[in-house]
Amino acid sequence: MLSKFYMPTKVIMGEDCIIKNCELLTTLGRKALIVTGAKSSKMNGSENDVKIALESIGIQYEVFDKVMSNPTIDCVYEGASMAKGTSADFIIAIGGGSPMDAGKAIALLAAQDIGQENLFSGQYENKVLPMALVPTTAGTGSEVTPYSILTNHKAQTKTSIASDLLFPTFAFLDAKYTESLGLMTTINTAIDALSHAIEGMLSVKATTVSDALASESIRLIMNCIPDMIQGAEIKNPLDLKQRELLLQASCIAGMVIAQTGTTAVHAMGYPLTYFKDIDHGRANGLLLGEYLKLVEKEEPNLSTRILKVMNVSETEEFKELLNRLLGPREEISSEEIFQYSARASKTKNMNNCVVKPTEDDIKTMYTKSLTN
Amino acid sequence: MLSKFYMPTKVIMGEDCIIKNCELLTTLGRKALIVTGAKSSKMNGSENDVKIALESIGIQYEVFDKVMSNPTIDCVYEGASMAKGTSADFIIAIGGGSPMDAGKAIALLAAQDIGQENLFSGQYENKVLPMALVPTTAGTGSEVTPYSILTNHKAQTKTSIASDLLFPTFAFLDAKYTESLGLMTTINTAIDALSHAIEGMLSVKATTVSDALASESIRLIMNCIPDMIQGAEIKNPLDLKQRELLLQASCIAGMVIAQTGTTAVHAMGYPLTYFKDIDHGRANGLLLGEYLKLVEKEEPNLSTRILKVMNVSETEEFKELLNRLLGPREEISSEEIFQYSARASKTKNMNNCVVKPTEDDIKTMYTKSLTN
Repeated sequence: MLSKFYMPTKVIMGEDCIIKNCELLTTLGRKALIVTGAKSSKMNGSENDVKIALESIGIQYEVFDKVMSNPTIDCVYEGASMAKGTSADFIIAIGGGSPMDAGKAIALLAAQDIGQENLFSGQYENKVLPMALVPTTAGTGSEVTPYSILTNHKAQTKTSIASDLLFPTFAFLDAKYTESLGLMTTINTAIDALSHAIEGMLSVKATTVSDALASESIRLIMNCIPDMIQGAEIKNPLDLKQRELLLQASCIAGMVIAQTGTTAVHAMGYPLTYFKDIDHGRANGLLLGEYLKLVEKEEPNLSTRILKVMNVSETEEFKELLNRLLGPREEISSEEIFQYSARASKTKNMNNCVVKPTEDDIKTMYTKSLTN
Repeated sequence: MLSKFYMPTKVIMGEDCIIKNCELLTTLGRKALIVTGAKSSKMNGSENDVKIALESIGIQYEVFDKVMSNPTIDCVYEGASMAKGTSADFIIAIGGGSPMDAGKAIALLAAQDIGQENLFSGQYENKVLPMALVPTTAGTGSEVTPYSILTNHKAQTKTSIASDLLFPTFAFLDAKYTESLGLMTTINTAIDALSHAIEGMLSVKATTVSDALASESIRLIMNCIPDMIQGAEIKNPLDLKQRELLLQASCIAGMVIAQTGTTAVHAMGYPLTYFKDIDHGRANGLLLGEYLKLVEKEEPNLSTRILKVMNVSETEEFKELLNRLLGPREEISSEEIFQYSARASKTKNMNNCVVKPTEDDIKTMYTKSLTN
């Protein structure tokens, strides 16, 4: 069987790593467009650090800070228009998955004309603006993936652009930007990363390398879960060292899904986010336990291997941990289950599954996941 | 602390992966120079597969098959001259570490004029011919590193060119080319890969990612050692599945040293190869046990972690395995020890060591490693 490994992004991690490595940005061009959301990157210091870095090496920049949660197609076309209008040579995207994914789509759309009808075709010219990405949550791993996931109102779900063109040139990981995240965002993003790593091991595209990386990511995140569970009672649930470990773990999990893609959990999570506005990481967490139960039934050896990496003795024990992290679950109606199952079963991600659920399996998983 | 991960080579693994992915080579140019040794790539079928792949997509090629074991500086200048003379757009290097390292240096020297006095300076223009590498041993990992290690007669040792320019664009891993390797080469190259992975964990540049990869590589190689020990008694010690695992392991170990560099073991091994013509992998194997004894003394926690990954209870047990793999050891005189220790202690690799041996430590290690 043919297997592949490819992840060309240069990852640089550490305190003040953007400012300390600002000279790298000169290799990307002379004019930057900073892509970010309206608020958080201003509050956590990341946008300011990027501006200091750019100014110290004489690179001009403009700021596009209109990226909302779960960015839309219109949003990235607007950003691309600004990139072209300001003659940006490269993109620096700062934030969680939303600004990073938007930044990657903007980099593509600023370099070539792609109509909306072809946006998700995967057929592009070999042109893209180079990118530097600065994650400010420890979840998405988008800084090291070839994906940009956008809200697609026409298809009423999230749809991904997947192309090697979307690998950023640089990823700068400084955990201090994640220190101001609240407990709920910390948990939801950590669960997203954990889900990436676990789904990587459940993918038909898993390789020796991706499994080694996934295992390390899972171990790092599982070690932080007890403190996250206790976090509800204290003000700052995790110290900077743990934040660093989570940021590494999410980046490593990103390297995993760059090889493997995601699976049924993400496929089923997208409708929960699109129709019920449930946070993306939380949606994965709600569904992860029941999918692992299905895997346990169909592929017990694979399940045992993952449980061993997680250092839990059985799937129920992991589900209990998830319950404590997630708290009370949202409700779902039988009409919603019917509608979401039909959608999820048609998602591309389903093709990555070693254990491919039937539409009935999916209905059962939605039911059990959302009615405690 | 700042840490980095960078390994931009696209790795493709599997039976007939070159022929099945020949269209990728069209992205590298229209004229290739095949760089290889005189014999083995003709015997194991790799050179023929590369020619079939190139012919099937209409790419012209010339062959430079003059690369000897431990290639010299003169050899790579001669190859570069041929690359320029034949207007090669890219390099395909086929073989063990020698042709691959030579191919990488040729790619650099064909793209820019670098005098011998600046060859190891690390200061180059941003120009190199793109490369595709085809390993035919499971040892060096050169297909995924930024290093080219050449025999430097002026310095009377092996010296490395280190530059991100030297990362190949593609690495094609097909284990069938390693099936014809004899037992001794199989063992020596596997020990080289094992040493890379272990030294990666012993490097001050080790990171979470490099350690996860190193651990996987160590596990894969250790699993094959019992069959290699028994191999002396049977004709073909390893089946194709094991060959594939070793080839993966050596590639993963290459990804590790791409991040961490090598340490005291390689530094001490180079004089054994240069002056005593001891195979590179074997030289590492001869020294590895004693260096791990020093690590055990100075950094017991690090030692314990590595022993656990190797699944052996103590360093002596691992040394015994190495003894059985290596057989009778070469002798070394006290003058040689004196001379090699002075050289090894000045090697750049020493700066990578968590446990940096003194010159006296080095003398002791040479003595104990080479007088059973």
